[in-house]
Amino acid sequence: MINTLVEKIKKTNAPVVVGLDPTLALMPEHIKEKAVKEYGNTQKACGEAIFRFNKEIVDAVYDLIPAVKPQIAMYEQFGIEGLIAFKKTVDYCKEKGLVVIGDVKRGDIGSTSAAYADAHLGSVTLNETELEGFGEDFATVNPYLGSDGVKPFIDVCSKNKKGIFVLVKTSNSSSGEFQDRLIDGRPLYELVGEKVAEWGESLMGDSYSYVGAVVGATYPKMGEVLRKIMPKAYILVPGYGAQGGKAADLKPYFNEDGLGAIVNSSRGIIAAYKQAKYSERFSPKDHADAARAAVIDMIEDINSIF
Amino acid sequence: MINTLVEKIKKTNAPVVVGLDPTLALMPEHIKEKAVKEYGNTQKACGEAIFRFNKEIVDAVYDLIPAVKPQIAMYEQFGIEGLIAFKKTVDYCKEKGLVVIGDVKRGDIGSTSAAYADAHLGSVTLNETELEGFGEDFATVNPYLGSDGVKPFIDVCSKNKKGIFVLVKTSNSSSGEFQDRLIDGRPLYELVGEKVAEWGESLMGDSYSYVGAVVGATYPKMGEVLRKIMPKAYILVPGYGAQGGKAADLKPYFNEDGLGAIVNSSRGIIAAYKQAKYSERFSPKDHADAARAAVIDMIEDINSIF
Repeated sequence: MINTLVEKIKKTNAPVVVGLDPTLALMPEHIKEKAVKEYGNTQKACGEAIFRFNKEIVDAVYDLIPAVKPQIAMYEQFGIEGLIAFKKTVDYCKEKGLVVIGDVKRGDIGSTSAAYADAHLGSVTLNETELEGFGEDFATVNPYLGSDGVKPFIDVCSKNKKGIFVLVKTSNSSSGEFQDRLIDGRPLYELVGEKVAEWGESLMGDSYSYVGAVVGATYPKMGEVLRKIMPKAYILVPGYGAQGGKAADLKPYFNEDGLGAIVNSSRGIIAAYKQAKYSERFSPKDHADAARAAVIDMIEDINSIF
Repeated sequence: MINTLVEKIKKTNAPVVVGLDPTLALMPEHIKEKAVKEYGNTQKACGEAIFRFNKEIVDAVYDLIPAVKPQIAMYEQFGIEGLIAFKKTVDYCKEKGLVVIGDVKRGDIGSTSAAYADAHLGSVTLNETELEGFGEDFATVNPYLGSDGVKPFIDVCSKNKKGIFVLVKTSNSSSGEFQDRLIDGRPLYELVGEKVAEWGESLMGDSYSYVGAVVGATYPKMGEVLRKIMPKAYILVPGYGAQGGKAADLKPYFNEDGLGAIVNSSRGIIAAYKQAKYSERFSPKDHADAARAAVIDMIEDINSIF
């Protein structure tokens, strides 16, 4: 799947992923109102509204981008109905030819991590019938539990040609509380980065590993160091746009081949219609066109660094 | 909710939690066969089988114990149908008066962590209607992202009188890869433990904080240190039994009041009927009676340390 991702990035010339992180607050009123009219003030209405909102955005941008990254928390908060919307979103995006990165940040140990890996990247076998879980192409993984937590994901990736992005240095302001602490003179995130490189060695695609890393756009100097520590890991970069990361800062995340990183924007795209920059040209009814305009602007912005 | 948990532990005299971590391999054949007969080789059959299996166990043990801990990964692997079984399990256990610890190990940043907290311990508001998520009483939380990832959970706990257990030192063999690394001469898990104590100060129940910790039974010396660092944190102790932790090792996890820790067993209880110790007395049809016998033995074993 890393090969497919790289091909799609080359083809679209867009090292960009759209974060499908819908919330009731970000969504245009008319979508919510319609769903409430049909299903009342229920989780089903929320799930329906979320999926319709996503579908309109995906229809408007799928030809421009290689991948999407639905954040499962935004669906999980609506219980089963929210997760039905998550699954429908994953399926629809795959139907449209997009690579789907499940931003699930799962991580546990042994058979439990294996169950998470099967849930998102694999399947369970019942009397020789393979039952697929949520069916994403990639998943994000939390490394705090060590190799025991990550290796079951690697096994499932190997079997199903899927991939993971391991949290190394996250984009938030308190990420340094633990991640930046010095161990033998070097920050923890570097040690995690080394492990990512090591885990990835056994699972190489054509030019990059199935095992990637998450490194926030908000810490470009650390991104530069981590790029060197994990030369074969694709870096998923959150924190661009709404969280303050700027394109000019992102060059160190890429390799000299112009590949090696994919930059995420969520609110900056899916709620573009609410931003001053787009709200004059696009009404809430045209939110998906605003998202398309924002994607075009983002691709141009990111590509300006090369 | 921490007060309720402490009361129930005192009332049952059982600092014990049963891990409801069903898998197809652990389950008696007749339960699976019946579900497959009704629903075919489908995820629905798996979900139904899981819930029926859980229900039989809960019916057999609920009067003996204060709490259960369903591991969501074991449900998530069956997709939506698995999560329906998770929700039904949570609801049924609450109906039976049990405290439910959702072993979800979630953790993200800002509004995303808030969404996870709402998903498991809170609700979302749609036009003044409160829509509850999965409705557990406690959730386990991964601290790798720092305070930004934990504080949204604390806010939701404060609002809804719920609680969390933060991963500090996990029970697996590779947990030391990152957690034991020395920072200014002290292991990372101690720094995380200090943060747990700090986070918990603002959210105290009568004698213990809403913010607890996960510390594996397999590292009793570390448990002893962490007990002192976090005197007001309830410690959720995995790793007893199947993972090798012994009762004799668990004393340091408790405070002098005989409280402060709750020990989990999953496979050791729910698959007791498969163990040599119980399989002569109990057939697979009587698996729930075997689970009851195993719970009684476990309570006796744990209480032997006092």
